[in-house]
Parts: sequence; structure tokens; C-alpha cells
Amino acid sequence: MSEPKAEDFSQLREHLRANDIQAFRSEFLDLHIYDQGQFYLKLEEDERQLLYAYLSPKEMADMFDVLEEEQEDVEGLLKEMKPSYVAEMLAEMYTDNAVDTLKQLDRQDVAKYLSIMSKESAAEIKNLLHYEDETAGAIMTTEYVAIESQQTVGSAMRLLKEEASKAETIYYVFVKDVNDFLVGVISLRDLIVNDDDTLISDIMNERVISVKVGDDQQDVARTMRDYDFLAIPVTDYDGRLLGIVTVDDIIDVMDEEATSDYSGLAGVDVDEVTENPFKAAAKRLPWLITLLFLGMSTATLIGRYEELVSEASILAVFISLITGTAGNAGTQSLAVAVRRLAVQDDERGFMSLIIGEVLTGLITGFVTGVTIFLIVGIWKQNFMLGFVIGMAMLCAITVANLAGSLIPMVMDKLGFDPAVASGPFITTLSDLTSVLIYFNIASLFMSYFIGS
Amino acid sequence: MSEPKAEDFSQLREHLRANDIQAFRSEFLDLHIYDQGQFYLKLEEDERQLLYAYLSPKEMADMFDVLEEEQEDVEGLLKEMKPSYVAEMLAEMYTDNAVDTLKQLDRQDVAKYLSIMSKESAAEIKNLLHYEDETAGAIMTTEYVAIESQQTVGSAMRLLKEEASKAETIYYVFVKDVNDFLVGVISLRDLIVNDDDTLISDIMNERVISVKVGDDQQDVARTMRDYDFLAIPVTDYDGRLLGIVTVDDIIDVMDEEATSDYSGLAGVDVDEVTENPFKAAAKRLPWLITLLFLGMSTATLIGRYEELVSEASILAVFISLITGTAGNAGTQSLAVAVRRLAVQDDERGFMSLIIGEVLTGLITGFVTGVTIFLIVGIWKQNFMLGFVIGMAMLCAITVANLAGSLIPMVMDKLGFDPAVASGPFITTLSDLTSVLIYFNIASLFMSYFIGS
Repeated sequence: MSEPKAEDFSQLREHLRANDIQAFRSEFLDLHIYDQGQFYLKLEEDERQLLYAYLSPKEMADMFDVLEEEQEDVEGLLKEMKPSYVAEMLAEMYTDNAVDTLKQLDRQDVAKYLSIMSKESAAEIKNLLHYEDETAGAIMTTEYVAIESQQTVGSAMRLLKEEASKAETIYYVFVKDVNDFLVGVISLRDLIVNDDDTLISDIMNERVISVKVGDDQQDVARTMRDYDFLAIPVTDYDGRLLGIVTVDDIIDVMDEEATSDYSGLAGVDVDEVTENPFKAAAKRLPWLITLLFLGMSTATLIGRYEELVSEASILAVFISLITGTAGNAGTQSLAVAVRRLAVQDDERGFMSLIIGEVLTGLITGFVTGVTIFLIVGIWKQNFMLGFVIGMAMLCAITVANLAGSLIPMVMDKLGFDPAVASGPFITTLSDLTSVLIYFNIASLFMSYFIGS
Repeated sequence: MSEPKAEDFSQLREHLRANDIQAFRSEFLDLHIYDQGQFYLKLEEDERQLLYAYLSPKEMADMFDVLEEEQEDVEGLLKEMKPSYVAEMLAEMYTDNAVDTLKQLDRQDVAKYLSIMSKESAAEIKNLLHYEDETAGAIMTTEYVAIESQQTVGSAMRLLKEEASKAETIYYVFVKDVNDFLVGVISLRDLIVNDDDTLISDIMNERVISVKVGDDQQDVARTMRDYDFLAIPVTDYDGRLLGIVTVDDIIDVMDEEATSDYSGLAGVDVDEVTENPFKAAAKRLPWLITLLFLGMSTATLIGRYEELVSEASILAVFISLITGTAGNAGTQSLAVAVRRLAVQDDERGFMSLIIGEVLTGLITGFVTGVTIFLIVGIWKQNFMLGFVIGMAMLCAITVANLAGSLIPMVMDKLGFDPAVASGPFITTLSDLTSVLIYFNIASLFMSYFIGS
């Protein structure tokens, strides 16, 4: 009635260890393929070897179709199996999933498996292996159902019955002309409600929404989300149907993109969660040490003003307040810019976003500056010092907003993922500019606030 | 062949303004409902009034079914229409979408529309309005197809034909017993490949994966993503079928959660993107000013060490380096903790994550500390000063990692969204602890590094 509990697996495991093939197979194959995968991942190698003996490559393929996204060490698992078993399994998987799996192996292994596979399957996989990562081509599958516009609903339904076991989705049927051009689409829902002798051309939707094979996977995801599609056709640049992207792949894309944006903002790959602190530290240290060196330039800069600080040690009190507040503002700008780039397709927003962020910086900087002017003025009974801190705050926040929005925009223009312009980088950079601004303004007004 | 261009709309708009009802309707209804919505949102009020006259509430409902997620000012739009038109439109919408729309209105308006709606529709909507936000109940719909296990495939297919226009999905059919208990599920794919006289009970899947009505929407999304479902049944706590959640709603949930995590990390609501800098500033200022006051405690703390700084102004040089690096480490911990909480269902990870993060902090802190010890020692020819900075770095990073992981974990335990323990809050808090650690260690070793 609900998700299987862990104990279900223990009985299954007993069947496996007891070599009770029949009991094992009947219970295992009764599980949802996702749960089969969860069970598989819990096994020891000797148990997995039994599994390979008990299950056909086709049964293994069904499980791997769902597994592949979760799996960290596909390579190791495939190495445990006989190469011919792997090749047959890959051929039985949906092509897009087989390609995803192969992409995690090294070239030699890919060539090995493809060479012992049936020619037809190998050709289909090779076709898809060519497409650049993170494009529609890389995530599409070729297992769709296509018909001609002059067929009837009845003949289309007969074709669907035959193809149902192979196609990744049968809920949309795509209509092609003799030259493979995509000319229409019809949902299974529409097929079902119409009579058997209706012509497809009379009921198909001719305004097909499709994507191009080179389109970014994020754009594909956005289109599918907007239109609430379960699958979308992918065409070449002339409009010939090449494959389809199904909604389960889009969910994975969205997950991936959200995680990478989030990781970028934090400066850590949040998905590589490990229980081992040494491994975790090893992954985080490159970022921290890089930023430490960038931070050293800030320290060096402050060092150049050490004399100023020794004359007016009160200046040291506000360093972290100014760098911290500017860093916070810069992170806000960064997040808004990265999000805007992810949501918006058109390019015209570039200058308007930058100008908007700078203006927002001026306004937030002004309000924050006046606030800190009053606080410091009253607290330290020194409004000139308050003025210096307030002015520095205004300038530092404006510059941080500029950097926070400009850097991801420029990275996007240059073809990099704007999310890589990560939060810690922006805050550390804004530390530098904030300190520069702060001490320059302080030097300028030094004579006024010292001793007043 | 691909997405309609903006110019398509201009012709459509001309038809509308020219009162050419027929041309308008034929072209408008030919559009995908998402594009209909995009067109609608571009109109001026007088044009929208024409639209309300030209389209039936049912046609408007189809469009609103897709529109509702995007729309900022549903309330204003509904106010433009006649109340009876709105009521009929809401009744025609899928119940989950009607509920989402109603939730954006104030109580009186909801009551008004429900009172002039058909009793049946009003009852269905009222039922769903009760469920708490962000639960399975709040996002489920009641328009599903249910059959009995003793029916044949043929009779099920006939029922599907009848229900196809009303049901939100016909691609899964749910099997209930006489007491409404969910006992099985069968996909349309399975119905199609089996013969008409096959009994449903022979082919249905009895291991139904379902969710409970009170389950968090994030858990529902996770289950659907793992199992690659297009729809999942929602039951009460006894197992009676109440509704289904479809994949398009899950995509919206994932979008929402990803955006809110990301917004939390940056301390800004990235979704409320506005072109107006004053509005943007107004939204960001509360956060910045709150953090400014928290930052003031850091400044006050440094103020208490002002004498120390005036004696050893070199200490000021490293304030921002230590607070910055600890802040970066804390943000990394925060992101990992929030992600872990989002991905992992079980509770046992609490202590292990905290301990893991502290250990990771000790290791990264040690490496970073040794690095800065060497740099400062060599740069300033003062290894005692290097030792102070290095020790402070080690401690500050460890504490920042503790705070970064502990705070979201505690918030989660207390039932708050852990993503609210946002990045700027953690960095500002870690500024405070870092400064405290830094100056305490510095005071302790003051006599050793001064003048050495």
C-alpha cells in the first residue's frame, strides 16, 4: 500500500542466499523497478553475482533504466558482469539511459561493449553518444511511436499495442511525413476518445511545440514545464524528428540544475555528500584555499593602511561590518542575476538588470548608510566618523551589487555557467573592494573625525 | 513547428480589436493553452473584456489551468469578470488548480464564488481547501479514473473514453474496493496491450506506491522522481483513495523548493524579480538592516578590543581574512546540511552530520591554518603572529561549520524550513564568533608576537 519497508528486503535476501531461484524471482520481479534497484545497491558482491545469474539482461536493463541516475559507481558494477551480459543489458535499456550509463565509462570500455552488441543497437547508441552534454540531443531517446497522417485511429492503436513494450512513452504519438519531417502530434487521450476510422490528419495537432537537438537542456525543461508536457519532440535544424525527451528526464535535469546553482552559491558541491570528513575536506579545501589567497590581497591592502589604523584604531572596529554588509548585498544581487539568467530566455535584459542592481544598491546603500551614520554618530558621539562609515557603506554596497550582477552576466555571455560565479567568490571579492573604499574615504576625512 | 513567435499574437490581437469573433476564436483556440495564457497576459483590460465575452467559462478554465502558476495578480483578473463567470470557470477547472487560484483570494471572495457555484463543484473544492499548505492534500486533484478489480479491460477502456475529457490524467487507472480502499493500479499502457476480456484483477499491480494526504509535498515529489511516476495516488491514513498528484504539479513543487532553498542561501527572494529598484530595495532592506544590527554586535565586540588593536594594529589586517574564510566554510556546511535534509528522509543522520561537519571543519581549519601560519610567518617575519592567525582560523572554521550544520538541523527538528537559516545569517553570525575567537587568542599570546 505504501513504500516497501527495509524488512521486505531481508526476506528477499534470504531467498537469494538460499539459492531459491523461484521464490526470489517471483518476489523480486513483483517489486517496482526502483525498489529492485534499491535492493540491488544494498547487496554485497557475492550476492550481486547470484543476481546476475538469476536475472536476464532484459530484467537487469529494466532495473538499470531507473537506477542509473542514482548510481555513483556504475563502472565498478558493470565490471563485475560478463561483457556479453553488459552489452545485452545496454541494448535492452532505453537508448537515452544506455547512453547516460556509457558516458560514465572510459572510451575503451564503451568501444568494447558496443563491439559485442547487435549492430542495430550499437548504431542507435552511437548516434546519441555524439550529442554535446546538456543539450536536448544528449537527453533524448529514440524509442518513440511515430505514425503517418493518412493512417486511421484504429491502425494507430494497433501500432501502439505492438510498440507499447519498447517505446519509452506511448502517451504521445508523433506524426511524420515521408521525409521524416514532424508534421503533427496526437495524444493517446485523443486517440482513445475518437472512433477507429477517424483519419489521424483530421484530429492531430499541427502546431507541434518542439525543440531543436542542440537546445540547452534547461530550455527544454522550461518549455516542458510551461506547457505541462509529458514528452516533447526533438528535431534537427530542418525539422526532421530525431527523438523525444520524456518528463522523467526533465525532472532529473531540473534537480541537477537546481543543485548546481545552489552548490555554486555556497562554493561546495552539495551533491557529493560523503560520510568521510577527510574526503569532504579534500573537496572543500581547493575552494577555501583559493579564497584564502584572494582574501590575502584584502589583508595586504589593509596592511598598507596599518599606519592609519594605529592612529585611529576605531577604524578597525567597522571593517567586518562594512565587508559583511556589502558581502550580503552582493550575494543578493548574485542570486537574483543567476536566477534571472535561468528563467529568462531573451538577451535584452542584460543592461537593464545591471542598471537595476546598481540602482537597488544605491538605494539599499543609502538607507543602510544613513542607519549606520546615526548609530555610530550617537554611539561614538562622533558624526564625522559616522559619515565616513555611512559613505563607505553606500559605496561598498553599490559596488558589491554591480559585481554580483555583472560577473554572472558576463560569464553567461562568455558561455560559462553563471552559477559558477559563486557566492564565496563574490563576497571575498567584495571584501577587497569594500576595504579599499573604506580606507580611502577614511584617509580623506581623517583629519575631521580624529580627536573630534 | 516550434514555439509561436510574438508576431502571431499581433494578428490575433487585431482580430480581437476588430470584433472578428470567428477569426479570433478559430485562431485562439488553435493555440496551446499555455500560449493562450501568454497572449491573455499581454492584453489591456478593455481587450480582456472582449475575451471574456468571446470565450466560454470552460474555454477560459482550460487556459487558467495552465496559467495559474505564473500569474501574479489572479485576484485583479478575477475581479474584472462577472462573479457568475468566475464561479463557472472555477467549477470547470481541475479542482487542484481551482483551489490554488482560490487560495490567492481573500476569504469573502472565496465564499462568494463558492456560493454561486454548483453544489457539487463547491463541495469538491471545499474538501481540498481544508488541507494544509505544502502537503499532498493541498496539491492533489480529485479528477482521476477509478475502477473495480472485477471489471474487464474492455469495460475499463469504455469508462476511460467517457472520463477522458474530465480526468486530469487517464494514463493511470486506480482500482478501489467497495469501501474505497485503494487496492491496485494499472497503467493505460497495460490496458492497451491486454485483451478486452482480461480481468483487471489479473493484470493490476497490487503493490501500489501511494502517499498519505498529510505527507509533505517534498516527500511526494521525491517519491515520484525516484519511481518516475506520472501520477501518484493519495490516501487517507487508513488507505482510502482521496485523490492523485500529477507530475506537472510535482515539477512546480520542485521548482518552488529549489527556488526557496536558493533564496534562503542568498537572503533574498529571487522569484520576486522586479524591474523597479525601489521595490527591489524595499524587499532586500529588512534582511540587510537586520544583519547590520547583528553585525553591530561584532563591531561592538571589536570595539572592546580597540586598545589591543591600537597596541598591535597588525591585528586589524587579518580581521576580514579570518571572518571571510570562516564565513565561506560556514556557508559550505549550511548548504550541505540543507541539501542533506532535503534529500534524506530518515532522522538518524542528525548527530552524524553534525559530527561529520565539525570533523571536516577541524581538517579544513587545520590545513587552512597551517597555510596562513606559513604565509604570515614568512611575509611578516613573525611566526608567533602566524601562529595566532592560524589558531584563530582553525577554531573559527570549526565553529562556523558547527553553526552552519547545527542551525538548519535544529530548525528542521523544530518544524521550520531549514533553508530559512540563510547564508547571510550564518556568515554574519560566524563574523561574531570569529572575531571573538581571534581577539581572545590574540590577547592570550599578545606578549609573544608584539615586538618580536
